Amino acid sequence: MSDRPHTPLLDQIASPADLKRLSDAQLEQVAQELRQETISAVSVTGGHLGAGLGVVELTVALHAIFDTPKDKVIWDVSHQCYPHKILTGRRDRIRTLRMKDGLSGFTKRSESPFDPFGAAHSSTSISAALGFSVARDLGGVVDEGLGDAIAVIGDGSMSAGMAFEAMNNAGHLGKRMIVILNDNEMSIAPPVGALSSYLSRLYAEEPFQDLKAAAKGMASMLPEPFREGAKRAKDMLKGMAVGGTLFESLGFSYLGPIDGHDMDQLLPVLRTVKARATGPVLIHVLTKKGKGYAPAEAARDKGHATAKFDMVTGEQKKAPSNAPSYTSVFGKTLVDLAATDSKICAVTAAMPDGTGLNLMAERYPSRTFDVGIAEQHGVTFAAALAAGGMKPFCAMYSTFLQRGYDQVVHDVAIQRLPVRFAIDRAGLVGADGATHAGSFDVAYMANLPGMVVMAAADEAELAHMTATAAAYDDGPIAFRYPRGEGEGVDMPEVPEILEIGKGRMIQTGARVALLSFGTRLGEVRKAAEALAAKGITPTIADARFAKPLDRDMILDLAANHEALITIEEGAVGGFGSHVAQLLADEGVFDSGLKYRSMVLPDTFIDQASPADMYEVAAMNAPQIEAKVLEVLGVAQIGEKRA
Amino acid sequence: MSDRPHTPLLDQIASPADLKRLSDAQLEQVAQELRQETISAVSVTGGHLGAGLGVVELTVALHAIFDTPKDKVIWDVSHQCYPHKILTGRRDRIRTLRMKDGLSGFTKRSESPFDPFGAAHSSTSISAALGFSVARDLGGVVDEGLGDAIAVIGDGSMSAGMAFEAMNNAGHLGKRMIVILNDNEMSIAPPVGALSSYLSRLYAEEPFQDLKAAAKGMASMLPEPFREGAKRAKDMLKGMAVGGTLFESLGFSYLGPIDGHDMDQLLPVLRTVKARATGPVLIHVLTKKGKGYAPAEAARDKGHATAKFDMVTGEQKKAPSNAPSYTSVFGKTLVDLAATDSKICAVTAAMPDGTGLNLMAERYPSRTFDVGIAEQHGVTFAAALAAGGMKPFCAMYSTFLQRGYDQVVHDVAIQRLPVRFAIDRAGLVGADGATHAGSFDVAYMANLPGMVVMAAADEAELAHMTATAAAYDDGPIAFRYPRGEGEGVDMPEVPEILEIGKGRMIQTGARVALLSFGTRLGEVRKAAEALAAKGITPTIADARFAKPLDRDMILDLAANHEALITIEEGAVGGFGSHVAQLLADEGVFDSGLKYRSMVLPDTFIDQASPADMYEVAAMNAPQIEAKVLEVLGVAQIGEKRA
Repeated sequence: MSDRPHTPLLDQIASPADLKRLSDAQLEQVAQELRQETISAVSVTGGHLGAGLGVVELTVALHAIFDTPKDKVIWDVSHQCYPHKILTGRRDRIRTLRMKDGLSGFTKRSESPFDPFGAAHSSTSISAALGFSVARDLGGVVDEGLGDAIAVIGDGSMSAGMAFEAMNNAGHLGKRMIVILNDNEMSIAPPVGALSSYLSRLYAEEPFQDLKAAAKGMASMLPEPFREGAKRAKDMLKGMAVGGTLFESLGFSYLGPIDGHDMDQLLPVLRTVKARATGPVLIHVLTKKGKGYAPAEAARDKGHATAKFDMVTGEQKKAPSNAPSYTSVFGKTLVDLAATDSKICAVTAAMPDGTGLNLMAERYPSRTFDVGIAEQHGVTFAAALAAGGMKPFCAMYSTFLQRGYDQVVHDVAIQRLPVRFAIDRAGLVGADGATHAGSFDVAYMANLPGMVVMAAADEAELAHMTATAAAYDDGPIAFRYPRGEGEGVDMPEVPEILEIGKGRMIQTGARVALLSFGTRLGEVRKAAEALAAKGITPTIADARFAKPLDRDMILDLAANHEALITIEEGAVGGFGSHVAQLLADEGVFDSGLKYRSMVLPDTFIDQASPADMYEVAAMNAPQIEAKVLEVLGVAQIGEKRA
Repeated sequence: MSDRPHTPLLDQIASPADLKRLSDAQLEQVAQELRQETISAVSVTGGHLGAGLGVVELTVALHAIFDTPKDKVIWDVSHQCYPHKILTGRRDRIRTLRMKDGLSGFTKRSESPFDPFGAAHSSTSISAALGFSVARDLGGVVDEGLGDAIAVIGDGSMSAGMAFEAMNNAGHLGKRMIVILNDNEMSIAPPVGALSSYLSRLYAEEPFQDLKAAAKGMASMLPEPFREGAKRAKDMLKGMAVGGTLFESLGFSYLGPIDGHDMDQLLPVLRTVKARATGPVLIHVLTKKGKGYAPAEAARDKGHATAKFDMVTGEQKKAPSNAPSYTSVFGKTLVDLAATDSKICAVTAAMPDGTGLNLMAERYPSRTFDVGIAEQHGVTFAAALAAGGMKPFCAMYSTFLQRGYDQVVHDVAIQRLPVRFAIDRAGLVGADGATHAGSFDVAYMANLPGMVVMAAADEAELAHMTATAAAYDDGPIAFRYPRGEGEGVDMPEVPEILEIGKGRMIQTGARVALLSFGTRLGEVRKAAEALAAKGITPTIADARFAKPLDRDMILDLAANHEALITIEEGAVGGFGSHVAQLLADEGVFDSGLKYRSMVLPDTFIDQASPADMYEVAAMNAPQIEAKVLEVLGVAQIGEKRA
């Protein structure tokens, strides 16, 4: 697809051990070749480009100086791991990134011993590095050995409470471990929060370029022992004298800031830390997201995530879209509602674009709050906004809302506060794989007393549900919708306010009722068409609500059909389980009902195209059709899948 | 029970408005009377004593100076809220604290407009105060008005990531709001973490006693505007010059430390802040937990939580116990296992005593980690310990594990790391009420692929499950057990290692099978005895595992009985839902089965005695008996409860 770059030195690197025999100048050359190879690979696969380009030099320096995989390099979030994968024996598969049966877009333990701790959600790396450091000191045994643990964490990830908890604990335990703060002023969205301002002040007055000469000589000049000498070292490096006291308050020795694209700074500092560190050390490294690739550097998001692209122009090769994304439908509907209701406000945790709240932020900036990577705070902040008479929409991905689960229970549900949860990326998500799947939200939300839980069957339904949530003020309400484009249905002029706890009939048939919750409705319809050819006309209903259930509709379906099958894109414990509980309570099973609940399988599903993932999950039309035939005892034609 | 103290001035305070006409000296007297009244009340009710005694002066000062309930005082955790309740119109009911139909032991929105935001889990108050501050500025409308928001948070709670997230966001937004850091060096356990050491350094050199005179004059001396003048103010107050830079890094003006038991410091500082603050302010207040009651001050936990007691001697009036607590059985079993397996280690989030890990900490301190109030970090730290070849037990209350849910999913389950989750306080918990109930863990754990989920039916089973978890190394495993004493069964010399996914038959009967998961087994047995008198002998089984299910046993029970009833102390979506999924998948319902799933009701249950709570939940023997009779269509005698 793209011409492969010329990489003579990189071609000789089969594993990090091969870096050990190179000079500093050669390491610099490896880094440049690695940058070109990364750009080339992502031009073919799409994926997270900017983050990797920002840490090319750091990746080379870490693997050259530390003894991976015995030493554990833990990439926070791991969007930035592509260069690391290229260096650690996976170059031959790098153009399969994020594809079915290919390399994961994230670090993954099962993929390589050089990935000691997988990641995809932010801010876990310091906890992991501390765990490895403690395990080492306690005599833990793993095949590749236990040496130093190095967490590489971005400034955005550092703002999450979990990172603070880990720093607090690490500073207390005082064990040797290394945190590299990769400060690029850009996680996914531009940075927010007081910490970000603080970090900027750390280098505002003394830009790191001035430090070059000083840093070069640091290795020999740093006093022994390292830790006690931290203050003197700082005096030598002017920039270091600016600050870092926040980290020192937490028990870390602070070094920096240094230029993360300058091997002449990175190598001596890392060598010194490796030789001398006795306790926890934080190295503050400044980098540029998208460094070295002009189209990424120029992009607003610094090339955060990209489709396949032309290497020369940077133009992305996206398939033309047929329908608006669910995310944009939510965002637009909310803006429309906010136009006539000044109490509507919105909360995102560092994902304004991903959640569609960028539209709210543009139109109603004073009512839109990006709290940073801080789901715990975000949920409780929204709860208090509701207690203060506002109508907050808390928009988060299903998988990230897990971070705020206790706050959903304790601050929202128990207090019955009307927070509106817009749960994006519900269900399977394609290339991001298992770590981003939104499989559990129906189970963990619908078992909370007083919570209303909806799922949109298509983008028009999503508009209705957004309006319904805005209008509902009796307690918390949640609505889920998937990643990607809608079904292409006509959009309403004005969204409807749905009756709480009422589903809708799609078609009336006989023998079997298919009760769908969410966007699998499209596949259910397709299955019904295929069944019609076999003389079976199923009844189809869209539940709309997992809680409260539409009791009348469900009991009616059960009473008038031989079989009832629920379909949802979620794990067991969710919609189908609530239906089963109702049917059991009402004694419907006493006299027999062919009841089946199609849920996501009890496995974490690796990345693939959405269609492939649904195939693995047995949630496409053919599998729904097969389930109907099986339940009705009709002989099936062809193989049964899954 | 105890003689009421003499409280002439307090007797005149019907609401905080009555404090406004008192002199500073009279406010001091109100505080002393309030302290005596608090001690007297808790001597009758039991409850959290030490925390309230530490903030008596602060409570009076806040209500005297701010305009509650328009101004929102938000007590973090709210263990310390008893004096606040006495001052805010609830003195007449203060001796019903934590009792059925009495006052909650925590702040609660439904109880009083003076409780603007309920709490029980830690570290939510800053998020809540920020939410109220933003709602005020956006024109939110609530009955009692929206004024200042003041979060009162302990140093232990401040160490949780959620508090950091909120500070980071508040510092960024720059809105006027007030955080009072109540620094008593003691949350429940002695403090841990680097933050705690940092706070100690803030006042180590200049004890607050020296500040008295300076603080007195501060109100008139503080320059205008307050915020820009913070540095000059600090120079005036020697102690303030010591530090506070961590909070200033996050955008807060820092004032303190001041003596939280000295009205001559509290009143002028609060008056000044109320008059002058323009942005976020943190006031660092030093207090003593248990202050003014010698038995509490002398106690290791500073009178954190107490049973009813004799006011003079402090002697607690606990009922004699018949059996060891589940907590202690877990703790002792783990210590025994750790004696012969050096890889076993343990993680608690600031609850070494509550989880029984104090025993591990005493015997194996180097293998026991109190990470502070930091469940997110604690879970991922445990995951990395497992990745590093250790056998970590992560012991948390069910309700607090919710704080680490994403980490359970993302770092433990997806990576299939063998973290052992010891889930204490599963199910209903009595006097602590809804916020502490462990109702959701089976649902949120058992739907995770690869997770093993057990529940102990009695304390011997808990010993077996602890040993089983230690021996199991194929992935994550969780076992839940309730608050309180065991059943009094004989304990094994050596605990057994259970076969994964196998239940046990308790008794073989006919017609109906009762399938219990967890400690409701005792009530099931009682119900069976009552049924025997009516000629019905149920089969009884203990499932032991919600995941993997004992398929053979369950299908066998279904095949050989007219009715199958599951019983668990958890919300819908848990054990019973997994059983229903199995029965549906296997077509058991096709031909009819009287299946019922007894789960916790879909409400948050207020505090009461455990027996009363089970009555509300319809989980005692009579309700189980009634359910059997109903399902079998046998005429019932007497009323049906629930």
